[in-house]
Amino acid sequence: MAKNMESLLEQMTLEEKIAQLMQLATFFYKGAAGDGEITGPLEDMGIANDVVQNSGSVLGASGAWEVANIQREHLAENRLGIPLLMMADIVHGFKTIFPVPLAIGCSWNTELAEKSAEIAAKEASVSGVHVTFAPMVDLVRDPRWGRVMESTGEDPYLNSVFAKAFVRGFQGEDLTNDTHRVAACVKHFAAYGAPEGGRDYNTVNMSERQLRESYLPAYKAALDEGCEMVMTAFNTVDGIPASGNKKLMRDLLREEWGFDGVMISDWGAVKELIPHGVAEDEREAALKGLEAGVDIEMMTACYAKNLEDLVASGELSEALIDESVLRILNLKNKLGLFENPYRGTSEELEKEVIMSEEHRHVAKELAIKSSVLLKNDQVLPLNKKQKIALIGPFAQNGDVLGPWSWQGSKEAAVQVYDGLLAKISEANLLVAQGSGIETITEEQLTQAVETAKKADVIVLALGEASEMSGEGGCRADIRLPEAQLKLVAKIRELGKPVVTVLFNGRPLDLHGVIAESDALLEAWYPGTEAGSAIADLLFGDANPSGRLTMSFPYSVGQIPVYYNCFNTGRPQGENKQERYVTHYLDIPNEPLLPFGYGLSYTTFAYSDMSLSADSLTENSSLDVTVNVTNTGERAGEETVQFYIRDLSGEIVRPLKELKGYEKVWLEPGETKQITFTITEEQLRYYHSDLSFQSDKGKFHAMIGPNSNELTIKEFVLNK
Amino acid sequence: MAKNMESLLEQMTLEEKIAQLMQLATFFYKGAAGDGEITGPLEDMGIANDVVQNSGSVLGASGAWEVANIQREHLAENRLGIPLLMMADIVHGFKTIFPVPLAIGCSWNTELAEKSAEIAAKEASVSGVHVTFAPMVDLVRDPRWGRVMESTGEDPYLNSVFAKAFVRGFQGEDLTNDTHRVAACVKHFAAYGAPEGGRDYNTVNMSERQLRESYLPAYKAALDEGCEMVMTAFNTVDGIPASGNKKLMRDLLREEWGFDGVMISDWGAVKELIPHGVAEDEREAALKGLEAGVDIEMMTACYAKNLEDLVASGELSEALIDESVLRILNLKNKLGLFENPYRGTSEELEKEVIMSEEHRHVAKELAIKSSVLLKNDQVLPLNKKQKIALIGPFAQNGDVLGPWSWQGSKEAAVQVYDGLLAKISEANLLVAQGSGIETITEEQLTQAVETAKKADVIVLALGEASEMSGEGGCRADIRLPEAQLKLVAKIRELGKPVVTVLFNGRPLDLHGVIAESDALLEAWYPGTEAGSAIADLLFGDANPSGRLTMSFPYSVGQIPVYYNCFNTGRPQGENKQERYVTHYLDIPNEPLLPFGYGLSYTTFAYSDMSLSADSLTENSSLDVTVNVTNTGERAGEETVQFYIRDLSGEIVRPLKELKGYEKVWLEPGETKQITFTITEEQLRYYHSDLSFQSDKGKFHAMIGPNSNELTIKEFVLNK
Repeated sequence: MAKNMESLLEQMTLEEKIAQLMQLATFFYKGAAGDGEITGPLEDMGIANDVVQNSGSVLGASGAWEVANIQREHLAENRLGIPLLMMADIVHGFKTIFPVPLAIGCSWNTELAEKSAEIAAKEASVSGVHVTFAPMVDLVRDPRWGRVMESTGEDPYLNSVFAKAFVRGFQGEDLTNDTHRVAACVKHFAAYGAPEGGRDYNTVNMSERQLRESYLPAYKAALDEGCEMVMTAFNTVDGIPASGNKKLMRDLLREEWGFDGVMISDWGAVKELIPHGVAEDEREAALKGLEAGVDIEMMTACYAKNLEDLVASGELSEALIDESVLRILNLKNKLGLFENPYRGTSEELEKEVIMSEEHRHVAKELAIKSSVLLKNDQVLPLNKKQKIALIGPFAQNGDVLGPWSWQGSKEAAVQVYDGLLAKISEANLLVAQGSGIETITEEQLTQAVETAKKADVIVLALGEASEMSGEGGCRADIRLPEAQLKLVAKIRELGKPVVTVLFNGRPLDLHGVIAESDALLEAWYPGTEAGSAIADLLFGDANPSGRLTMSFPYSVGQIPVYYNCFNTGRPQGENKQERYVTHYLDIPNEPLLPFGYGLSYTTFAYSDMSLSADSLTENSSLDVTVNVTNTGERAGEETVQFYIRDLSGEIVRPLKELKGYEKVWLEPGETKQITFTITEEQLRYYHSDLSFQSDKGKFHAMIGPNSNELTIKEFVLNK
Repeated sequence: MAKNMESLLEQMTLEEKIAQLMQLATFFYKGAAGDGEITGPLEDMGIANDVVQNSGSVLGASGAWEVANIQREHLAENRLGIPLLMMADIVHGFKTIFPVPLAIGCSWNTELAEKSAEIAAKEASVSGVHVTFAPMVDLVRDPRWGRVMESTGEDPYLNSVFAKAFVRGFQGEDLTNDTHRVAACVKHFAAYGAPEGGRDYNTVNMSERQLRESYLPAYKAALDEGCEMVMTAFNTVDGIPASGNKKLMRDLLREEWGFDGVMISDWGAVKELIPHGVAEDEREAALKGLEAGVDIEMMTACYAKNLEDLVASGELSEALIDESVLRILNLKNKLGLFENPYRGTSEELEKEVIMSEEHRHVAKELAIKSSVLLKNDQVLPLNKKQKIALIGPFAQNGDVLGPWSWQGSKEAAVQVYDGLLAKISEANLLVAQGSGIETITEEQLTQAVETAKKADVIVLALGEASEMSGEGGCRADIRLPEAQLKLVAKIRELGKPVVTVLFNGRPLDLHGVIAESDALLEAWYPGTEAGSAIADLLFGDANPSGRLTMSFPYSVGQIPVYYNCFNTGRPQGENKQERYVTHYLDIPNEPLLPFGYGLSYTTFAYSDMSLSADSLTENSSLDVTVNVTNTGERAGEETVQFYIRDLSGEIVRPLKELKGYEKVWLEPGETKQITFTITEEQLRYYHSDLSFQSDKGKFHAMIGPNSNELTIKEFVLNK
């Protein structure tokens, strides 16, 4: 970090400064090879080409050759030799695609999550990327929303540990010198994960207290880990769009949290202040965006066209622009771009590291750990000598990468059929498509039935096409498409063992599938190594260990349903017929499958839970221990989960809050003692005056295999 | 109001004071005849009988004989001769039952609403009731919630005008001297109408700004009209149960709004602070309830058992108790109970006024005005010479009163069959049950089909049993029950004209009914005169004029859906295939039927909408006029609706906000000019600092027959 950025800033004209605040996609640039993925409205920017060439950063550039080319053309014309920052959405892998983040969350494995980010950073950085728009850490409770697949789930604590893991993986320990890392940009600030009705970009309604309690912790965790950038959200936060929200960005993020990195808008979000109805025109949008704290405007030109005039008219202080530019320059400097504008970029390394065997190995490992076994009536693992009928639209389908895998290759992905075939003889693997994703013909159905009849066991590979989730991919009906439900029903009639493997980007309403299957494996979108990971799991070469991090609702009419909810004044008791309690007449209150749930090919027993003392104080802690035993016949991994409940607070408290967990590998018959430490700090929460403190009184410590099967011990906090 | 309440208070022992703060149901009292309706958990109160006999008020007492008896027994033992207040839930009629409030809302007729409350007050007061727990003015957006039938709907403005109308109707102009009125108690303070997931009593999440903008106006309107009492809500408001929420009751209701009437908890809600998790025991619940501002504890005895000790220990100031007692005494005094503890009560008048012809006439009128014609493909009105097959579980069913009609008699209600029969010959009216509410047999189906075959037109009378809505009556699936959908499908196969009349307490997902019917009349629960009102409407002796006040969702997966929502930054445009906009992949954003929607047997045309000026200021107003013409061949009533939109504010503004409406009766061919006046005051809203003010700039004035068919004119507010 040799350069003095303040002195560089002093040399810049206002016009040059403003250009730094603009980010456009590659196709605006000389030297670009092709298009990045377009995820927002594009229109005539109404800006001159020299403004583009003076701009500070590029969206979606990748590929060593292209990136170097753009940088070279840029530097050739840039008066002060300020290099471009190359940013892109590297969400769950670059070319080697890992499971979608919701699946990674289900691994509860932060080491592998970190490793996946490290690999993504390496592949991206040799391809010229400097910054990734990840991790997405939005807390999610509504499976209708398409972007739940980008989140690690419904828990603030778990989202926070994953946020940190991803940031560590992307950035490493020395971003300046480790050119195979990229700067991370946590998103979407804030509460993008709570759109009303599960419709993308929609209004978000909550109090500041709830925002702080549930939604903000994961963003904060990413920043505590040194995350360099923050991206705004598309939604409103208490009536003001996040991308024009001064309270959120200046007051909270900058002043209270002390964040001094770069804040970027999401795609077009500054200009979207107009349709939101808080800005009359682009000029007002520019003013509100910058004043609120957005440094870089992505993919619209409100800043480029208006900031100069706003300064001239005295409406905007140039000092605010200087602040933003300095932050951007500092990031470029931190990345070493002034010394080497081609940082990391290498056509040779691209060939060597991208999709390397090592990378694919980690992708497979993570896919195995991310899959969740939801049901198993003694049918899994499969016997390699059995005749298997593989049926369904995902039997031979490369659409297993999931949304946000724009650089991934569906062709290079291992399909389920190929994964299975690698382990058994071709004669033992029959295959039929059965149906399309949303269509089915009589012919497909007949062929599926004929194929199934010849087999000992049927593996149904079903799910949502990847475009049925992701950005803009919201569904009001979260069941499997009708066509596939029809296929399931027909196959079920045969009376043969049915194993269903699901590929999808959200918790589904599993009616029509789970009761009709003897075993159900939730594979999510497993990524490049989908087929090989699933084959390992189905045949028992790997033992399923994933645990859900987002509740599977009983039906769409139950949304939102999440484990860390609150008691009411009239909680439902044992008598499910009681009328004047919180309940539905037609379905249970409980989700079909709870947070933390997942099966293994072995079984685990919990025993001897005990507390080291009955109480703790602000200056003492308390240990809670439990013995976990592998009571089955295979080695396997259990995720021991630790929750607490505050029985009486100033504010109503969640029935359960995850406060820790430990993954433990146990050989058959083996027992390990697991210990969690409880401190007063863990018991703090936001009070009505927004102070973060604990209340003395009674608490429950709870340990078990999932949020619904817990052993409870009471303790007291004395203050 | 002769007595001096302060001096009375001075004579009271602490024990006597505390007893005033307790409310129990009739069965605790000597002299009671039977039970009131029980809508909450009952348990051993753990209080002595003399505490009961010293109590201040009674829940659910009614009937002149019983009430007088209880009062007499009470006064015989009460040291200071303080009479009991008799309170009861008189929600939409006492014995003469009017349509449920959601239906009354659809009448947009505040005169009839007021009249219905006046009649309810008269019937109740002669039966000894002094206070009614009404109106319920909770804003509702989630039809899963069972209590939406108690609200007038999703609009703050309309809820406010109805809140005022009901209060006027109940209380009249001189509560002291008009003994045929009762004191009103607006409920449930606050935001009870927004339970998460539509499950009764559940957590409510919103910011204070949103609370003030959408949820509080109707409570405030009731108080502005002089409403004597307020009831708490069961839910939390920003993490603190409403019944223990000091900010809500002391700060906002008492200090900011200046309310000095009596605040009562909902049934058991003080004790429910324990399961909510903000009180460890009854003692803490009592302390928190009273400190927060609950004067009367309903149906639990936390106060009775703990307040004395809390005062003795110095934790609670006796002055707070005095304040509460004084408010109660003042209300008793205002009602004239010290002069005549048997106020209004009269066994003779009971016989004379209850269910009088006049009362039933108003009930019929209101039922007619409350029904909403949702579809009519030239099949209605029916011809009296046609042969009609009346089929369905509501064909001959007295369950048309709806929830909260505990004093109503299903036997005395006019059934649909009887209503129709009064207008046509028995030979022309065939009938079959077709199905139960949730069950259907082959025999029922066959009989229905045979009956239908003999007729020229089929009238299906379908719906929800009344216990499928109301308190504790929440549904995750809001379609008609499967059994009835099966009946509809079977009848539809006959190819004959089908007219469906629906009886239900919530907006339903109408898939499976609306497309299968040639006409659809939403009758809600019309009350005592159900059958006669429906007969008038079906035969054209009355012309339907109701307009929806709550959106009918496309499906349950679309909830919440309401007309006064906000734009996003990426609103859906003409191209419904566009991906990166706010939308679902599988259903539209728009509800199936919007707020304000309803048909007539005639048609209305809007023309010549104009503004008196292009702009207004804080000191000038602006008129917007429109011509409305009856373009059909029958006289009819149109509800001319006036909305505004603030195009750019500090806070995002609703796409539409109802600011006025006018009901206009038009003869065929007749045109009337309707004028609405816009003032700056109407354009105010809560800003981020909670100031209530307007923003200068552009607005839309919109007029039309419903929230989805509006003509727009732009105007400007200059400041």
